[in-house]
Amino acid sequence: MEKGKRIVVALGGNALGNSLKEQFDAVKYTAKALVDLIEAGNEVVVVHGNGPQVGMINNAMIALTHEDAKQDNTPLSVCVAMSQAYIGYDLQNALREEFANRGISKPVVTIVTQVLVDENDPAFQNPTKPIGRFLSKEEADVVAEKYGYIMKEDAGRGYRRVVASPLPQEIVELDAINNMVNSGQVVIACGGGGIPVVRKGNHMSGASAVIDKDFASCLLAKDLDADMLIILTAVEKVAINFNKENEEWLSSISTDEARKHCEDGQFAPGSMLPKVKAAIDFADSKPGREALITLLEKAKDGIEGKTGTIIHA
Amino acid sequence: MEKGKRIVVALGGNALGNSLKEQFDAVKYTAKALVDLIEAGNEVVVVHGNGPQVGMINNAMIALTHEDAKQDNTPLSVCVAMSQAYIGYDLQNALREEFANRGISKPVVTIVTQVLVDENDPAFQNPTKPIGRFLSKEEADVVAEKYGYIMKEDAGRGYRRVVASPLPQEIVELDAINNMVNSGQVVIACGGGGIPVVRKGNHMSGASAVIDKDFASCLLAKDLDADMLIILTAVEKVAINFNKENEEWLSSISTDEARKHCEDGQFAPGSMLPKVKAAIDFADSKPGREALITLLEKAKDGIEGKTGTIIHA
Repeated sequence: MEKGKRIVVALGGNALGNSLKEQFDAVKYTAKALVDLIEAGNEVVVVHGNGPQVGMINNAMIALTHEDAKQDNTPLSVCVAMSQAYIGYDLQNALREEFANRGISKPVVTIVTQVLVDENDPAFQNPTKPIGRFLSKEEADVVAEKYGYIMKEDAGRGYRRVVASPLPQEIVELDAINNMVNSGQVVIACGGGGIPVVRKGNHMSGASAVIDKDFASCLLAKDLDADMLIILTAVEKVAINFNKENEEWLSSISTDEARKHCEDGQFAPGSMLPKVKAAIDFADSKPGREALITLLEKAKDGIEGKTGTIIHA
Repeated sequence: MEKGKRIVVALGGNALGNSLKEQFDAVKYTAKALVDLIEAGNEVVVVHGNGPQVGMINNAMIALTHEDAKQDNTPLSVCVAMSQAYIGYDLQNALREEFANRGISKPVVTIVTQVLVDENDPAFQNPTKPIGRFLSKEEADVVAEKYGYIMKEDAGRGYRRVVASPLPQEIVELDAINNMVNSGQVVIACGGGGIPVVRKGNHMSGASAVIDKDFASCLLAKDLDADMLIILTAVEKVAINFNKENEEWLSSISTDEARKHCEDGQFAPGSMLPKVKAAIDFADSKPGREALITLLEKAKDGIEGKTGTIIHA
């Protein structure tokens, strides 16, 4: 067996389902694919998204204020914190169970992770990150009116609330994550891109934002000196001229080529574009680093160069 | 300075406030007292309760089902998980800020922690642990009827839901906690007594229960080979004949004396009794181990033998 790689895997929040029941099934499937990577000798750190989950928790905290007048609204940063435990608890148990099923002894841990953002990040002026479940036009109008939410239509699937998505600057609990990874734990960290906080003197204050989990994964992968960043998505490979006559699926591209495709508008903002940008950032950060974009169930083949899109310097 | 001790501190959930605003103030005060212990050279691991908080989260998840018919009810174990991040996020930031204010460089981490319980624990037949906010008799009757909750009157302060409180058997993430403590992190773990899980083959399944944080702290203190277990409460010392003419405040008692007081019914179940029982269990577990029961702001003096109640073998 080839020497294993240190890999940060970025898992989509949508792939984890829209309810606890869906999540319960989704994590089993996810755990199998992740344990495949670990069984092959790789060191794996898991970052997950939380779009549907943080939206659900946010909705629950709002619903509580309707039933209990003494209850204040809960900031989005606190909802992100709760989503890390909500998802981490299920995901770590699914991983543990899959290890046990294969007779592998490997501890798993979820670390509540804060990520510093810049309060002057222009993203705060232009919210783009969808959270929560899809609503009809009528439902969307109601919550926009009631809570001042900004609602946007999302790829024909309905309307969702959008919030600011500032760039991650620093992972507050990096020392703890690094320690855990080095001691052989499978670490789940930076869930939902991390709890967004801004520095105010010695105080860290929660920000009303959701950090893109692909950018947070890229930062974590660089900080942990990982060999590979795997960004999982709903397609096996990245395409240019997507859905057009001259559609082309990419197997391996340089960061220069990838940058050109970004400039040419080949990738959808809020969808493939941040993934490719995070991949470029990681692959360019140090010689030998590569990023892989593919399907969860193709990750193992992707590492072996059999499928997926590799982005290299 | 005397060589520092390894100390597990059990912090009451009620002391952390009934809302996010109250918690925000409470954690500042708590952090000052905890950092005092650490500045004095002690290694501190923090376990907190979550009675009001898990009740609030549980209420929010129920409120969501009223507004979104597609939403299933969220199990209590998942609410406990969310409460760990809800509290841990605030508490770790308050600790970090207090360290920064004193020019101390010390990382803090919150670990999502599961604790195994026995599905045959008799506690499941006799729920006693109060969670959630205090309700009037009328409000209590409504939720008892609506959700089948068991409601009990609590020390003249109103009615609260009671759930099973099984004994903790094993801390699932112990390796991670041990690693973090040994690497010099201030660890927040077993929040709310830990997420209660029962083993079903290789699968761990959430239990509808809340583990007593004093018993969970005792187990963690034993597992981490701590020198001292500090159980914080609302009185400076433990009393016998409490509120009677012959009331006596105890400064130092042996586990034999403490056991006799328990048998004599000196301590209120669900209040001082579990604290004294956890203290006895820890002090008897290995020569040299002591437990201290006192107020948060007296913890430092208590370690130095100036106040509080010490329980020793």
